[in-house]
Amino acid sequence: MRLSELSRAAGVTPATVKWYLRTGLLHRGEATAANQAQYDGSHLQRLRLIRALVEVGGLSTETVREVLTAVDDPDIPVLDVLAAAHDSAGRPPRAPTGADDLVEVFLRHRGWTVKPGSPARQQLAAVLDALATVADAGRTAQIGHPGQPEVADAEAVIALLQPYADAVEPLARAEIANAPVELSRAQLAERAAVGTVLMEQALTALRRLAQEHFAAQRYGRT
Amino acid sequence: MRLSELSRAAGVTPATVKWYLRTGLLHRGEATAANQAQYDGSHLQRLRLIRALVEVGGLSTETVREVLTAVDDPDIPVLDVLAAAHDSAGRPPRAPTGADDLVEVFLRHRGWTVKPGSPARQQLAAVLDALATVADAGRTAQIGHPGQPEVADAEAVIALLQPYADAVEPLARAEIANAPVELSRAQLAERAAVGTVLMEQALTALRRLAQEHFAAQRYGRT
Repeated sequence: MRLSELSRAAGVTPATVKWYLRTGLLHRGEATAANQAQYDGSHLQRLRLIRALVEVGGLSTETVREVLTAVDDPDIPVLDVLAAAHDSAGRPPRAPTGADDLVEVFLRHRGWTVKPGSPARQQLAAVLDALATVADAGRTAQIGHPGQPEVADAEAVIALLQPYADAVEPLARAEIANAPVELSRAQLAERAAVGTVLMEQALTALRRLAQEHFAAQRYGRT
Repeated sequence: MRLSELSRAAGVTPATVKWYLRTGLLHRGEATAANQAQYDGSHLQRLRLIRALVEVGGLSTETVREVLTAVDDPDIPVLDVLAAAHDSAGRPPRAPTGADDLVEVFLRHRGWTVKPGSPARQQLAAVLDALATVADAGRTAQIGHPGQPEVADAEAVIALLQPYADAVEPLARAEIANAPVELSRAQLAERAAVGTVLMEQALTALRRLAQEHFAAQRYGRT
């Protein structure tokens, strides 16, 4: 199909397709004339993947490129593609704090084997830092924060995170177990990227919906 | 305390404190001289809350302002503060599609009571749209996507979302139940905002850590 047909089929403007071609996010079509090329299903597939990552995943073009590079490179192990997808939705790097040790203790307590450099470790440690900051400020300001989690020591962190880890552990186990083995590496990697970004959005949306439901029950519609 | 002491205590630069004062995110101190003011614990508390929302929650200053406005206004119901915090982490509005009906069917199936305008509905519908787009492109391109979820009809959507909803439902119930009733409205609202933004980060980090653990078990460290 021609560029105009491709753009219509993917639901993006021709200008966007051209920009993706120029930046290399989308592979070139087969040249059929000086200024014309033919595109096929692989272009459409890629274009829709990009759209999903950008529009729903909220990823930057730069981050989409990193994920796609990992998806396309047969020398990059599947686990690193997963890491690229994870990384992409993460925050910029932070300086290590005591919270990193607390995360390590928690992972050991949980029996989860996770690489030292995993971005998700950083993300979790940043949350612990922020919670400690808020709780600390509450004490300093002598504002009572009953129920505000204490995150100063390992025991408190384990108690705080346990219900969250209990919620996601069976889910993550099923997600990995259900990934079909007979998929090609590229398909597996693409699934991992989409599944990570999109189903993470689904998970947080469902938590919010359930919270709203239970909050309405408890506090009423006032 | 003086502005320099406040900024040191909160771990932000004096310029940042001044900017928050100027933009109204932070309430003014008590004037003690022409160009001097005294700040107290309430300023420190607020400053650390802003920092947590910006740095870990990744919220824009504009969004932080909306959340704080809701927290401060006694006329805004608690549920709407929750919605403001939720909204803030959400995506821009989208045009309604068939996915909105599928979300409604799912919520009814689940027995969750959620306001029609809730932003989390939009977020979930956007995920369903994106999944349908990717799956559809896979078929068009005749690329086999075994295991790629089908999201065309209600039954398929219910089956797809069920494990995710099962994971978060007990969590959300406990989160709402554990919110102490004796908190002031402002404290409750602040907790809701922090809990929503920060613990959502914790939840997604934990899912990633668990996925990495189970992926390493299944695919090995290759």
